Amino acid sequence: MKLYRDFKKPALLIDEKKCRENIRMMVAKARKHKVIFRPHFKTHQSLETGRWFRDEGVDRITVSSVEMAQYFSPEWNDITIAFPVNIPEIDEINELAAKINLNILAESAETVSFLKENLRHKTGIFIKIDIGNHRTGLQPDNFSEINKILDISYSSEKLSFRGFLGHAGQTYHCRSADEIKDIQKKSLYIMEGLKKNFIIKYPDLLISTGDTPGCSICDKFSGTDEIRPGNFVFYDLMQLEIGSCIEEQIAVAMACPIVAVHKERGEIVIYGGGIHFSKDRIDDITVGTVYGRIAGKKGNGWGKIIPDMFLKSLSQEHGIVSAPAEEISGYKIGDILFVIPVHSCMTADIMKRYFTLEGNEIMMMMKF
Amino acid sequence: MKLYRDFKKPALLIDEKKCRENIRMMVAKARKHKVIFRPHFKTHQSLETGRWFRDEGVDRITVSSVEMAQYFSPEWNDITIAFPVNIPEIDEINELAAKINLNILAESAETVSFLKENLRHKTGIFIKIDIGNHRTGLQPDNFSEINKILDISYSSEKLSFRGFLGHAGQTYHCRSADEIKDIQKKSLYIMEGLKKNFIIKYPDLLISTGDTPGCSICDKFSGTDEIRPGNFVFYDLMQLEIGSCIEEQIAVAMACPIVAVHKERGEIVIYGGGIHFSKDRIDDITVGTVYGRIAGKKGNGWGKIIPDMFLKSLSQEHGIVSAPAEEISGYKIGDILFVIPVHSCMTADIMKRYFTLEGNEIMMMMKF
Repeated sequence: MKLYRDFKKPALLIDEKKCRENIRMMVAKARKHKVIFRPHFKTHQSLETGRWFRDEGVDRITVSSVEMAQYFSPEWNDITIAFPVNIPEIDEINELAAKINLNILAESAETVSFLKENLRHKTGIFIKIDIGNHRTGLQPDNFSEINKILDISYSSEKLSFRGFLGHAGQTYHCRSADEIKDIQKKSLYIMEGLKKNFIIKYPDLLISTGDTPGCSICDKFSGTDEIRPGNFVFYDLMQLEIGSCIEEQIAVAMACPIVAVHKERGEIVIYGGGIHFSKDRIDDITVGTVYGRIAGKKGNGWGKIIPDMFLKSLSQEHGIVSAPAEEISGYKIGDILFVIPVHSCMTADIMKRYFTLEGNEIMMMMKF
Repeated sequence: MKLYRDFKKPALLIDEKKCRENIRMMVAKARKHKVIFRPHFKTHQSLETGRWFRDEGVDRITVSSVEMAQYFSPEWNDITIAFPVNIPEIDEINELAAKINLNILAESAETVSFLKENLRHKTGIFIKIDIGNHRTGLQPDNFSEINKILDISYSSEKLSFRGFLGHAGQTYHCRSADEIKDIQKKSLYIMEGLKKNFIIKYPDLLISTGDTPGCSICDKFSGTDEIRPGNFVFYDLMQLEIGSCIEEQIAVAMACPIVAVHKERGEIVIYGGGIHFSKDRIDDITVGTVYGRIAGKKGNGWGKIIPDMFLKSLSQEHGIVSAPAEEISGYKIGDILFVIPVHSCMTADIMKRYFTLEGNEIMMMMKF
């Protein structure tokens, strides 16, 4: 058992109570709006944290890689891999489909033809639609390719068409609830149109959407059947900036030892750099680039974010914290500083494990 | 043995021949200028790659953490930890100092007093000087703190003052050889001034400097006694941008499977995202943000960088490649795409292992 003050090196802490509250909040929201809840597990990447979802009745999940599906498959038998099928991994996909209810994602007839030839077990397939994020997926009016995929899929004994899946990741650029609601409205309108077109031939087809900002803020979900938020389990500084959460809902912080205090330049140097936080950043209009914000101590964890104190730069192992004169005198070499990370998914992924405030170590998936 | 075409998931490839040439080039440069060569091993983080340095006669190294010193200590008995002493790790420092010639870095009397009380074995100490990078270190005219450190160190039986250490990391913002030479000149002028002031009392004191851009480009090293470049073993897109290397010296590339090709929008989607590349970026004045550039295939590895083709965005697992019309038709789903990373240190750190073009797997340090 390790409490924050026992860490000699940068460590990721999570507040289990807050995580569980975040999970309960989203489960309740999905129930209220009568949508299937299939949370994305790419943020926490841990069997143990996954069980907190099961405690709330969750029975199906989303992951972002075949590897992650393999990792969760001993405990979850209904998994959607929300990433375009990577055909070199067909053997691994077949192994998974033999064991669990697996859904995969396609956005080209080319890939679906390959699947038709090579799948050995029943597998659900979603068609990825670009609902405005422009990262990947088919344009919603590309009926030619959609119909090709549906035809191939229909003629396959193994492929079973499940519906259309989209990710309105453009909400990450929003800075107000109204903007997010507007995006959700537009993206669900696109999906509703698609559904109307194909529901007659495929009466069970589902619309699957749901990014963390949209799911956190919006109160209208008509047009979707399933939501897949992931980040909300931890939240982070980016979500706070977007307005998806309040400060008290953020359930992660890095604990970093202080290695130098430079009062004359208002800076604290911490052991904690790009290899611990990753390098996601916020461009703050007042102070410039922000790689994290500093929180005070509270009990065995962190308290409120301290105004005007932030992680201003990161090199491989160093982090430089800008600190106002009235704060800096409270810190000394060897103390632990709490930093709220910009992007909890990336920080967790890089740290590979985290510790609850009660000192329990939670291992994440190891990648090979 | 795995060649690039055997990879099903993003993999980091290195060209051993180029690495060895880069090492030989820097060893020859240090010899020519009669400076000690103490390469930084934070880039490659591997015992095996370390042996390539030993093949060229290197016998002392630099690392960036206590953990990294522990990892290399079975094969290297002269190590400088070029990071301000993290006092919670005093037990680990004592264990290392009992086994090898260890140098550590301090920038405050507070830390050095702690060391005087707690060190149990002879340990070399460098004073960290800010030579213009403003990341950390003492201002070179802060004689009051420097003298305090020297006095405490002098009165300690365990501490042995080795000299002044600086890192002119501001060269990373340069985009021409003249700018880099100017920075090197100014930073070595600062160090020479310090040396003149303290050489009488400490006739063996060393000046230790040497970032990759400066060491790659400059041909004047008077004023320094030791250089510690690290990145040059691999180089990367950032160093190419700075002008530290030519394209042919870059010894790393990521091999990423293609999961979608969108001809109509000139984009290729690869399996390879922020959790593989890390998120260092270049702000290109013509095309905007660049997370990597694409190279063609050549033998078992990569060839020349393809103009106008680049990694334009990264999410957790996805990379979006912008590709000109005349190139895109040459790629199909399931192919491997070669991406030259922006910052090889960060990419290697996150990938945890790499493969030579001959298919040998090289493991890196595991962090715990």
